[in-house]
Amino acid sequence: MPDKTLDLAKDKYVIGVDYGTLSGRAVLVRVSDGVEIASAVHEYENSVIEDVLPTSKAKLPPDWALQVPSDYVKVLKEAVPAVLKVSGIDPNSVVGIATDFTACTVLPVKLDGTPLCELPDFSDNPHAYVKLWKHHSAQGHADRINKLAHQRSETWIARYGGKISSEWEFAKALQVLEEAPEVYAAMDKWVEAADWIIWQLCGKYIRNICTAGYKGIYQDGNYPSKDYLAALNPKFENFVTDKLEHEIGKLGERAGGLTAEAAMWTGLPEGITVAVGNVDAHVTAAAANAVNPGQMVAIMGTSTCHVMVSEKFAEVPGMCGVVDGGIIEGALGYEAGQSGVGDIFGWFANNYVPAEYLEAAKLQDVDVHTYLSHLARRQKVGAHGLVALDWQSGNRSTLVDHQLSGLIMGLTLSTKAEDIYRAIVESTAFGARKIVETFNAAGVEVKEFIAAGGLVKNQFVMQIYADVLKMPIKVIKSMQGPAVGSAIHAAVAAGAYLDVHSAAAAMGGVTDAWFEPIAGNTAIYDDLYKLYNQLYESFGGNGSMHTLRAIRDRALNSAEGKK
Amino acid sequence: MPDKTLDLAKDKYVIGVDYGTLSGRAVLVRVSDGVEIASAVHEYENSVIEDVLPTSKAKLPPDWALQVPSDYVKVLKEAVPAVLKVSGIDPNSVVGIATDFTACTVLPVKLDGTPLCELPDFSDNPHAYVKLWKHHSAQGHADRINKLAHQRSETWIARYGGKISSEWEFAKALQVLEEAPEVYAAMDKWVEAADWIIWQLCGKYIRNICTAGYKGIYQDGNYPSKDYLAALNPKFENFVTDKLEHEIGKLGERAGGLTAEAAMWTGLPEGITVAVGNVDAHVTAAAANAVNPGQMVAIMGTSTCHVMVSEKFAEVPGMCGVVDGGIIEGALGYEAGQSGVGDIFGWFANNYVPAEYLEAAKLQDVDVHTYLSHLARRQKVGAHGLVALDWQSGNRSTLVDHQLSGLIMGLTLSTKAEDIYRAIVESTAFGARKIVETFNAAGVEVKEFIAAGGLVKNQFVMQIYADVLKMPIKVIKSMQGPAVGSAIHAAVAAGAYLDVHSAAAAMGGVTDAWFEPIAGNTAIYDDLYKLYNQLYESFGGNGSMHTLRAIRDRALNSAEGKK
Repeated sequence: MPDKTLDLAKDKYVIGVDYGTLSGRAVLVRVSDGVEIASAVHEYENSVIEDVLPTSKAKLPPDWALQVPSDYVKVLKEAVPAVLKVSGIDPNSVVGIATDFTACTVLPVKLDGTPLCELPDFSDNPHAYVKLWKHHSAQGHADRINKLAHQRSETWIARYGGKISSEWEFAKALQVLEEAPEVYAAMDKWVEAADWIIWQLCGKYIRNICTAGYKGIYQDGNYPSKDYLAALNPKFENFVTDKLEHEIGKLGERAGGLTAEAAMWTGLPEGITVAVGNVDAHVTAAAANAVNPGQMVAIMGTSTCHVMVSEKFAEVPGMCGVVDGGIIEGALGYEAGQSGVGDIFGWFANNYVPAEYLEAAKLQDVDVHTYLSHLARRQKVGAHGLVALDWQSGNRSTLVDHQLSGLIMGLTLSTKAEDIYRAIVESTAFGARKIVETFNAAGVEVKEFIAAGGLVKNQFVMQIYADVLKMPIKVIKSMQGPAVGSAIHAAVAAGAYLDVHSAAAAMGGVTDAWFEPIAGNTAIYDDLYKLYNQLYESFGGNGSMHTLRAIRDRALNSAEGKK
Repeated sequence: MPDKTLDLAKDKYVIGVDYGTLSGRAVLVRVSDGVEIASAVHEYENSVIEDVLPTSKAKLPPDWALQVPSDYVKVLKEAVPAVLKVSGIDPNSVVGIATDFTACTVLPVKLDGTPLCELPDFSDNPHAYVKLWKHHSAQGHADRINKLAHQRSETWIARYGGKISSEWEFAKALQVLEEAPEVYAAMDKWVEAADWIIWQLCGKYIRNICTAGYKGIYQDGNYPSKDYLAALNPKFENFVTDKLEHEIGKLGERAGGLTAEAAMWTGLPEGITVAVGNVDAHVTAAAANAVNPGQMVAIMGTSTCHVMVSEKFAEVPGMCGVVDGGIIEGALGYEAGQSGVGDIFGWFANNYVPAEYLEAAKLQDVDVHTYLSHLARRQKVGAHGLVALDWQSGNRSTLVDHQLSGLIMGLTLSTKAEDIYRAIVESTAFGARKIVETFNAAGVEVKEFIAAGGLVKNQFVMQIYADVLKMPIKVIKSMQGPAVGSAIHAAVAAGAYLDVHSAAAAMGGVTDAWFEPIAGNTAIYDDLYKLYNQLYESFGGNGSMHTLRAIRDRALNSAEGKK
């Protein structure tokens, strides 16, 4: 709620646009104090393309996920004018715009920024489209990248917890080279969507340090060497010099001025500041005003992304990456993650809750998560007798292993749905504690834990995290964290603040209420966490889950063995 | 179905009465070929007393389970006349009656057989009632019995897989002594219900070798020594000599003739043969005509009991017991068990199946088990990617540990209810394989596997057992296995057959159809069983499930730690 009276005549505004997986959201924010005046959402017309290419109707292989770049431009044409209209402010009082994007979401373009998929020769070629972050069919390429990096003792591999993801720029580019050499040959640049959208706004291609660092293996001013790339595939030798490297922009810098064309799309004044691109998770730290060393921000939704700045460099085992200036200019930015959190709660709630629970929830006019939480929160800690591993989507940090799987232990004939629900929530909190402890053990101390994202609304979940982590859980003020974070970067780029620190202090923040650990609970969770840790070490290391996955994959790929 | 025409004038009959947990079932069987002519059930009026004593209305402590002996007599008065009436045969053509009982179900009586609970002085004393097999509050007493036996290297302890159960005669008697010394002092005999009911029928107390051996620690003609008993509790020193030891009867022997009073209750001729008592699981071997060495009979219901005779003596790790003549006279009888089988399937089906499955099952007019089986049987073996431990009720054999708990591994966001259902069924089959392999490894070879009990109706389950065990699964002919087994013993006791072997061959048997292992499936199950075995060894030995149970019990017993 605005805590100051809106002065339409005097106040200045910025717009943050958050590009998510299914839609883009524009939020209009007051520069002076970060108050969110209005917001508008536009869903991508083509959503996520996973089955059939819309042009040729060709079937896509498994694990593909594409998008259409013009859908992103539509957000500028629809959501930005909409937010201006709803707010009622004078467009001339908007001083800047910034965006954040999913990552690594990447596309092949010509020198002028035209996506290859918009050229008639390539519109039927799936490799000419945007590869969305969750395009997972380059695992084989990622495996080769990692194996070779370790064989050659490449120094950069330790900056990524020992593993480059199949989701990132190099694996996806190598896939293009080897599966569609004609696309690879025709593309002039391999561009993050985070930067491509800024290019559309200001007419200039600037590569943001965040995706360049976390997704593009850009470390200490260098990319992987030609020798290394040639050893991967001789035709990949010049990938960096030919397709990838480009001017790097810092976060919160001005990329350029809004073009006349983009001004027409958006209804904003031509020439206003367009900030350097950014990533949805990392930009949220500013919205929480958590950009100082030791402040870990957890963006908790279907999965959780952890970002934290530090002055200290360390190779934290299993982190996603450490990038100088990757979260805020002048500090090291660390990223870690849990591949499954809210989607595990959803999986259980959607598939394993009996009819009478649904009826009772309906009678109480609450959703099934709320109903299960109500039942589960009445329990004493530990009374369900369960401990679980939160690996239904694999483990991103600290094991970086997507062939792992979920596990529940302690089941009895008395175990009820709310028991398992609670144990699953706890398992994700244990997973978060494991990450925090791993950072602490590496000397990168976690001093504060700030929650952002959709799950912060669930008090039951938040209290469990406080009790398990034995730390107060602070909660971001805004439910539109990424868009507000972008707006903060727009304000800095427009010169309204000296730097992101001061802008975040003025415009971002946490709520006054937070979740304190309850002493009686923390002691019991210490005992349960010991058991979680035993399972973690045992199943993270003994290979039995890999064997099980291999048996599954053989069964799924074989016509035999069927009864 | 009768395969011969009934000749009411010439045919002879026997009656078997199966005393279960909730009711007694009388089956009238033709002596010549075992054809079941009629059956009748009578439910116990007081069922299982677990909460409140019906006389005093006093609240019972947790884990108590009592019964009222007169309810057993009611079965004789109701079910036996009913089965005679329904069959239409002449009662004078019935030549014998035999019973089988749950065990260890045990009661304190006076010298004339009068239960203490029927005396006015004791009718309000819960310890004066029948302690049902599942009365589990003597665990502390059992723990002391086991600890002392191992300390003193008592030779008999190895005959019971290293552990005497809290369910058995000594633990329950020690509980009576220490919690109700006045009951202990007043009782002349501590009698198995299996023998007490025979006493009511023929007026004579004979202790059957089956319960004496498996539940009464009667080995090689001896009970535990006075020294040992005195070391448990000085007042327990003369328990065997004062309260327990008594003439032993062999299985299939005549205990006596039907008394005039029992003839009046039942409508049967006075003086006809009453056989020595027996136990529901063990007596089923005869009904399956599986009384030769190496024929393992699995009575599969909510739990599974495995019985097998052998000429070879071995101390099989984790078996429930080995008793000479305990299944059939002249051979060693082995017993093993799985604490949870059908009740685990039921637990999952009742608590974790979503509404749309129930609706689909209703539309197809099938129960939820059938519906889940239909879905699960379409899968290729291993395709669900899961492996589970079947320890939701603990593990009876081979670990003899009721503090263990169930576990599921391999969960992903794609895992559906039918996947877990199938994995749970498979886990019980793996549990059975573990028992079979343990017998084989001890040199007591399992040559045939014969299934009996309620689960044999489920073809999906039976096929999985065949594939996992890599053995044909034969299926008992009768769905009233225990009652038919009793009837066979009645026929032998009445002199209609030379011995149980020949009676079982004529009256018992398996169906012509059985379940053959499918080669493509067995190989995959070998791989999954390896993983099951890894979990089995790991969680059976590492103590983590005990720790988890201790955390649970502390939480349940404590008022603290509550949010």
